[in-house]
Amino acid sequence: MRKVIAALGISLDGYIARPDGAVDFLFMPKDYSNAEFWKSVDTAVMGRKTYDVGRKMGGSFGMPVYVFSRKSRAGKRDGVTYTNEPPATVIANLRKVSGKHIWLMGGGELIRDFLKDDLVDEIHLGILPILLGDGIPLFPGGFPERDFQLLENKTCSKGFISVKYERLRKQSRKRKQSRKK
Amino acid sequence: MRKVIAALGISLDGYIARPDGAVDFLFMPKDYSNAEFWKSVDTAVMGRKTYDVGRKMGGSFGMPVYVFSRKSRAGKRDGVTYTNEPPATVIANLRKVSGKHIWLMGGGELIRDFLKDDLVDEIHLGILPILLGDGIPLFPGGFPERDFQLLENKTCSKGFISVKYERLRKQSRKRKQSRKK
Repeated sequence: MRKVIAALGISLDGYIARPDGAVDFLFMPKDYSNAEFWKSVDTAVMGRKTYDVGRKMGGSFGMPVYVFSRKSRAGKRDGVTYTNEPPATVIANLRKVSGKHIWLMGGGELIRDFLKDDLVDEIHLGILPILLGDGIPLFPGGFPERDFQLLENKTCSKGFISVKYERLRKQSRKRKQSRKK
Repeated sequence: MRKVIAALGISLDGYIARPDGAVDFLFMPKDYSNAEFWKSVDTAVMGRKTYDVGRKMGGSFGMPVYVFSRKSRAGKRDGVTYTNEPPATVIANLRKVSGKHIWLMGGGELIRDFLKDDLVDEIHLGILPILLGDGIPLFPGGFPERDFQLLENKTCSKGFISVKYERLRKQSRKRKQSRKK
């Protein structure tokens, strides 16, 4: 199954950006590689605000991009696909076709919507050794409790920590048991 | 100098407790030891709400406790010292007498006050592999940016991560230089 992987860098106090969207505090240490991650995904999904910030910074994603927006007109333009459908519908449609994993790039509001619908399969975070004191939170409150299990915890240079978590769904055991019957 | 060490357990989304103060999601893995930490501190400081939750849970701290409260009457009672003085004053007074480090136990509002006054020297976190979706944040916004450096990053069983950071103050280099003059 194509997994939805939320992958992004955050400050130690859990912000993905400063209040104005700036991400100047992010850095990528030399001994950190996300080459494997890039090989594992072929589609990016993100919120409209995150996309606009990325576009301003000249960001190019090198893969098909779906932008979630309630206000923007749906459809393909400027090299991306705008959608106002619910995350569950968009992900279900993406999973109908074969492909690699799906990169949930942010921001916090979209990640909250994905967590509400329990669509997040993995979380990959680069944690920077800084407290910003204010900003756009990765995990704004307002979704049900979700258990995860740690897949990986790496210490890189300059205090950069790379962690990977996998969603731990309690139903999966029940499903396995009911299959056995 | 007696350091102020903020040390506590948090959910992956940065909460120190559920909205009602419950900390049932916290656990201490067998392969994690904070014996060294306990040996290094001899005084605990905390906010009034955190103290009340701890007291309800029958918590005993085994060391002198200072409770910060704007509303409570100042003074010693029930085995603790209530204070309505600013954190900087209380810490300065504690540093006038020799002793071990000072444990800043929480909650978020007091930690914010300490960070505003740049009184936090170290942050020790136990990060639990769960998203609560709502709760009392460790780092409510509203303090200036603060740089830290990573001292330690340990992976324990059951997905528990133990990280330790030290405050990186840019003035310290200037101070050293001015001393040389």
